[in-house]
Amino acid sequence: MLTRTTHLFDDATRVTAGDSRWQGQTSDDYWAFVGPFGGITAATILRALIEHPERSGDPLSLTVNYCAPIAQGAFDLDVRLVKANRSSQHWCVELTQGGGEVATIATAVFAERRPSWSHQPAEFPQAKPFEQILPYPRIKASWANQYDFRFIEGYPDFSGVKPGEPASAYSKLWMADRVPRKIDALSLISMSDAFFARIFHARRELMPFGTVSLTTYFHIGADDLVAEDISRVLAVADAKIFHRSYGDQNGELWSPSGRLLATTTQIAYFKA
Amino acid sequence: MLTRTTHLFDDATRVTAGDSRWQGQTSDDYWAFVGPFGGITAATILRALIEHPERSGDPLSLTVNYCAPIAQGAFDLDVRLVKANRSSQHWCVELTQGGGEVATIATAVFAERRPSWSHQPAEFPQAKPFEQILPYPRIKASWANQYDFRFIEGYPDFSGVKPGEPASAYSKLWMADRVPRKIDALSLISMSDAFFARIFHARRELMPFGTVSLTTYFHIGADDLVAEDISRVLAVADAKIFHRSYGDQNGELWSPSGRLLATTTQIAYFKA
Repeated sequence: MLTRTTHLFDDATRVTAGDSRWQGQTSDDYWAFVGPFGGITAATILRALIEHPERSGDPLSLTVNYCAPIAQGAFDLDVRLVKANRSSQHWCVELTQGGGEVATIATAVFAERRPSWSHQPAEFPQAKPFEQILPYPRIKASWANQYDFRFIEGYPDFSGVKPGEPASAYSKLWMADRVPRKIDALSLISMSDAFFARIFHARRELMPFGTVSLTTYFHIGADDLVAEDISRVLAVADAKIFHRSYGDQNGELWSPSGRLLATTTQIAYFKA
Repeated sequence: MLTRTTHLFDDATRVTAGDSRWQGQTSDDYWAFVGPFGGITAATILRALIEHPERSGDPLSLTVNYCAPIAQGAFDLDVRLVKANRSSQHWCVELTQGGGEVATIATAVFAERRPSWSHQPAEFPQAKPFEQILPYPRIKASWANQYDFRFIEGYPDFSGVKPGEPASAYSKLWMADRVPRKIDALSLISMSDAFFARIFHARRELMPFGTVSLTTYFHIGADDLVAEDISRVLAVADAKIFHRSYGDQNGELWSPSGRLLATTTQIAYFKA
């Protein structure tokens, strides 16, 4: 008997095509505390665009604004090609549930990645091999357990704020799917939001937190990413400021071979 | 006779209110080589949102996707409140001309900036005082001449690529309006796009270039920014990668007093 085994990630980001309206559904496997993991929502939106018959080119940038919590269950994606150029496309996607208000709005750019002068000033972060680091243990949020996080620097410590200086918000870690899966653009967008909140690191404690807006740029062509043939990335993230209930995050996702695959930034709400 | 003198920047970003459709017009004073300076377009969009009667809270994030060149003349802004929450708002703005295709699409988040725990891990860049540095000379693009750029590091050198390593893409400079104007959120979004292209620095030459997507986060409440009462910012920008016709930029805009006012990132097309 033939058993088809789909990766949980692909199940969770599955979409059903419509003309301009696509359907998806939340996944209990990628659930955060009050709604779906933001990375899986972003990946589902990106999947709808990548699978869209009018799509051409590779993902270049994606911005996702999380407007309201998404309830467990089905949702609709209103997918619109805003403008098509000779070598790039601009898209807008709105996520709604049951004909209600917009819960997530995203804009994306796709582009033909033509050969050009190439230069990577960013420095590849030094890291101990993946195999030599223990995975971060399972936690209550199901989404985090779908990933294999191996911390090189900035291991999460929730023992509380120490007197004096806040702790560092910097982390360096290997990220892989717990069940190995080849890294594609969907992985990269999801992993962009898979860092623990910078405020948890800086304050050494958990608190109410939510990503408000996430932007990721893709620095590799889809063909090159296939050729990399990798199942993990080396990831770094840091924050520049926490102020008046909002803080930022900026991060990089690297191929083990030393290629910068994606850069990401986000602004997030926190209560502290 | 009473003469009312409006700053060129405010002229250039003037908008006329409609219900959901607002009007603006390009400005010859902020013209780039093939269309309006992207920063002035972003500032005009932000102005329409700030002046919108339904707007509440301060700008938190703005993403602008430049889809097509904007022709000289009038344009329409289709301004839509996508989702309003108790303490935040999500907006979408589409710029069109003469009922044609979308030339620019933007999403924005506004938020009430409530008091919270505050921490600024980013380090204030050291800089010589503004007064001790000569302004960058006037150039052909009119927009650049509306600004007073005073370079501390990464002075533009367009003498061509040297053999060996590409030049640094890093710049540190003071930015002010040539005719002094108090820094507000509109200044910050415009200045976010006022760095010279990173590829010009890395290659030491000019070439076809265009910002594709720009994201800026605001890290200061509007009231605090008024209280800063400044007419210039200390700005730094760098790039992480140039690859297959696209390169990134990340930057910071600082108050002279050492407050991080805004962080910005963009992905841009180049031909080299």
